[in-house]
Amino acid sequence: MAGPLKADGAEPQKPAEAAPASPIYGVTVPKGYRQWQFVAPALEAGELNELRAVLGNATAIAAYEKGAKSENSEKGTRPFPDGTVLVKLAWKHVPSPEFATALVPGSPTTVQVMVKDSRRYAATGGWGFGRFIDGKPADLAQHQTCFACHAALVKDRDYVFTRLAP
Amino acid sequence: MAGPLKADGAEPQKPAEAAPASPIYGVTVPKGYRQWQFVAPALEAGELNELRAVLGNATAIAAYEKGAKSENSEKGTRPFPDGTVLVKLAWKHVPSPEFATALVPGSPTTVQVMVKDSRRYAATGGWGFGRFIDGKPADLAQHQTCFACHAALVKDRDYVFTRLAP
Repeated sequence: MAGPLKADGAEPQKPAEAAPASPIYGVTVPKGYRQWQFVAPALEAGELNELRAVLGNATAIAAYEKGAKSENSEKGTRPFPDGTVLVKLAWKHVPSPEFATALVPGSPTTVQVMVKDSRRYAATGGWGFGRFIDGKPADLAQHQTCFACHAALVKDRDYVFTRLAP
Repeated sequence: MAGPLKADGAEPQKPAEAAPASPIYGVTVPKGYRQWQFVAPALEAGELNELRAVLGNATAIAAYEKGAKSENSEKGTRPFPDGTVLVKLAWKHVPSPEFATALVPGSPTTVQVMVKDSRRYAATGGWGFGRFIDGKPADLAQHQTCFACHAALVKDRDYVFTRLAP
């Protein structure tokens, strides 16, 4: 008989589907995020040269929409409430096979996740970060850069770059 | 008393929220499409120079996903079933105010809709088209170009350019 048994004879529960978590933050790729609502696309034209799209869970979208209706719409979504989760998908871009002037998604590169939990992540503006490559978290060094960059560039937008596309 | 009354004294029902329909096809902007699932982003680098994103209703997404799992994934989603609706949002792009190398959505330009109804639109590959600017359909001349271009370039993909982003 393989492995220990619990008192009732059942095999111990294994977290068989435990998703791999990011270093520092323990953030995982949220289940079902591909069904979440669309926030905005982007083209990152720098070194990475990627097409991107941000999706948000219901809490994120509600906060964005409240912000969009607010007179102070630049600030209205800030801060995002606890429970907000944003996922950024990124792909290398390739020319459309059928339409020469269009760039469309090629291979996926990273999936990046931001989770708002103001107590758990009090030291990083209330946000936990995860960067995943092919479902696996990137290394510690990469995760050490997330907050520093968001804090340097978008601290006054609750550390979030992406606006809801009009 | 303004206007005619019905026999029961109530004012006649007006189609107060009747959405304006496209010429040729009678396609309207579907209600709630902004909540639909995300299909893919694109950058149209030509004359239009737009960021774009395609969203699909549940029928569209189911067909895309079936296609993505199919061995013959280039063909697997084709043809899309009746009831498929695809919406392409487009924006002028602007540099991100906070991240110089990123292009993000600026002003919205068009919302373009494809509706599959193989009987109603039998003459145009089963698809009806609508192109809307600020909620209003573009003119007849613009709608005369939709099918010709889709037929010339992506007839063997059931007239749909956009693939589900991996």
